[in-house]
Amino acid sequence: MKIAVDAMGGDYAPQEIVRGALAGAREHDVELILVGQPQAIEAELAEAETGGIVLSLVEAPQVIGMEESPAQAVRRKKGTSIVVATRLVQEGAADAAVTMGHTGAAMIAALWVLGPIEGILRATIGTPYLGIQEETFILDGGANVDCKPAHLLQFALMGRLYAERMMGIKNPTVALLSNGAEEGKGDKAIIEAFPLLAKSGLNFIGNIEGMDIPLGRTNVVVTDGLVGNVVVKLTEGLTSRLLTVVEEELDSVLPPEILDSALRVTLAEMRKRYHYSRIGGMPLLGVNGVVVIGHGRSKAPAVVSAMGQAKRAVESGLVDSIRAGWEELTAKAN
Amino acid sequence: MKIAVDAMGGDYAPQEIVRGALAGAREHDVELILVGQPQAIEAELAEAETGGIVLSLVEAPQVIGMEESPAQAVRRKKGTSIVVATRLVQEGAADAAVTMGHTGAAMIAALWVLGPIEGILRATIGTPYLGIQEETFILDGGANVDCKPAHLLQFALMGRLYAERMMGIKNPTVALLSNGAEEGKGDKAIIEAFPLLAKSGLNFIGNIEGMDIPLGRTNVVVTDGLVGNVVVKLTEGLTSRLLTVVEEELDSVLPPEILDSALRVTLAEMRKRYHYSRIGGMPLLGVNGVVVIGHGRSKAPAVVSAMGQAKRAVESGLVDSIRAGWEELTAKAN
Repeated sequence: MKIAVDAMGGDYAPQEIVRGALAGAREHDVELILVGQPQAIEAELAEAETGGIVLSLVEAPQVIGMEESPAQAVRRKKGTSIVVATRLVQEGAADAAVTMGHTGAAMIAALWVLGPIEGILRATIGTPYLGIQEETFILDGGANVDCKPAHLLQFALMGRLYAERMMGIKNPTVALLSNGAEEGKGDKAIIEAFPLLAKSGLNFIGNIEGMDIPLGRTNVVVTDGLVGNVVVKLTEGLTSRLLTVVEEELDSVLPPEILDSALRVTLAEMRKRYHYSRIGGMPLLGVNGVVVIGHGRSKAPAVVSAMGQAKRAVESGLVDSIRAGWEELTAKAN
Repeated sequence: MKIAVDAMGGDYAPQEIVRGALAGAREHDVELILVGQPQAIEAELAEAETGGIVLSLVEAPQVIGMEESPAQAVRRKKGTSIVVATRLVQEGAADAAVTMGHTGAAMIAALWVLGPIEGILRATIGTPYLGIQEETFILDGGANVDCKPAHLLQFALMGRLYAERMMGIKNPTVALLSNGAEEGKGDKAIIEAFPLLAKSGLNFIGNIEGMDIPLGRTNVVVTDGLVGNVVVKLTEGLTSRLLTVVEEELDSVLPPEILDSALRVTLAEMRKRYHYSRIGGMPLLGVNGVVVIGHGRSKAPAVVSAMGQAKRAVESGLVDSIRAGWEELTAKAN
């Protein structure tokens, strides 16, 4: 399997990306294609240990400037690393692309170069509810707002297939996130999406409320990107804040030797468990190929994890399963 | 000051409501009007200590059945306790009403009997970010979905006045909750509300993201009720879940004598600090009078707190400040 890594995308590119890509190629036993400016990449490779890695370099001369809109730049510049990496997937020269660059730019490049899966209205990115409920997946995570009922139905399908193929959950449950559990609660889009999901053949359990997410009441949480983004970021901020408060409160009541040996170690482990770098990146769902998009703040370990996501998406046939799933769902509806 | 308490509303009515109302009258030094079925109330009063309390009873013979829609029942039955209590406020026989009954029913009763403040399109209920950021107030908390930009602007004004009058915050900051910090991020309603807030004269600091709420980045968080409800309930569920995980994790590493003396005590105090009963109920904002609506699960201590909210709303002139604030804001816009 060949994975193309965008060496120029992300806050710590190219250094951390190249380091992570090499480690990822070794860990996941895949061939590595580094995409970007040859000089910059070679400078990093000169300092690295590349023995045993099947490695090639594909030139992408253009860079998106700080002052440019990344989304517009992608359309204007065919030689940027994200476009070139995506094109390798389209041409079959790579099985998957991985980027830590601008999410919007990566989505546009994927939609433009690979195209959406037939019938899919919007590509989406979800996020696992890391550390707190390991078997919960939320989508959309922020890419799509003002969603219509048909979008929510497609998110439900793609979320279900992600949970099944990538997380190994059998017949995952699917729920709509709303402001009340009963049917009829929610905004217009949720209320109208409810019957679509109910007759979709997905394992739909109805509406859930905010507290049901950390309690693990469903495997797939379907929501508009505005709400999904707030959920993910609130969870990040609140987790961090609460663990800090716990530490401060216990600081004044626990004996010092226990603070260092037990409390701080435990809280540090918890923080690590909740950290996005454990997953590293998520596949863009709904396009004709595997593109894994990670956090701009990613360092090498996140790149390693993101490559693992890419490998799993390829091996599990995620893209084909979405194509077939949508065909089946629409055939049943007609 | 006279506070009318709906003795029949809430999961633990009438017992816990009457007990709480008596304690609240004593604690806040207010006259108490208990509204409901005389027999039921008198049975509770017979077992209670009422010395020193100026107390009266107003009959409300009708009850909303389990099978009825509370919202429809309120319109059909003029003799339900929530309608009668609200009418006492409208007639000037009470300065405020407090209910732990169905939120939708209480809102409809208030809009019907007291009416909306002139120019206010939707009444709203907010919620303080209890325990985590004591100087943050979020609205709408779930009553209003599919909000338009004009609704968000009015929520901003009412939230600002709540923060100022009820929380004692000087010139509180106001922000729109979105899926990105920059102007232009958000759904259609948020994007269009942004310039309205920017020229409103409110202390508007722009968009915030989910993680900014627990970090206390703004005093007033303005959002659609769908998102607001998810934020509040997710916070409740995640806080509970994380404190449980902390306890489980530390259980295996801390010596037993410290577990009981320090850890469990500290975590129990934290849970109490985050619990809704500390506030008890929130005034419905945007109607011509003070109606405080609490949690259906409320027990006596929550009723005491809710009566404190009612007293503070009356004393601070919250209703008049909203009326004047909206006049001023619209005068400036014209």
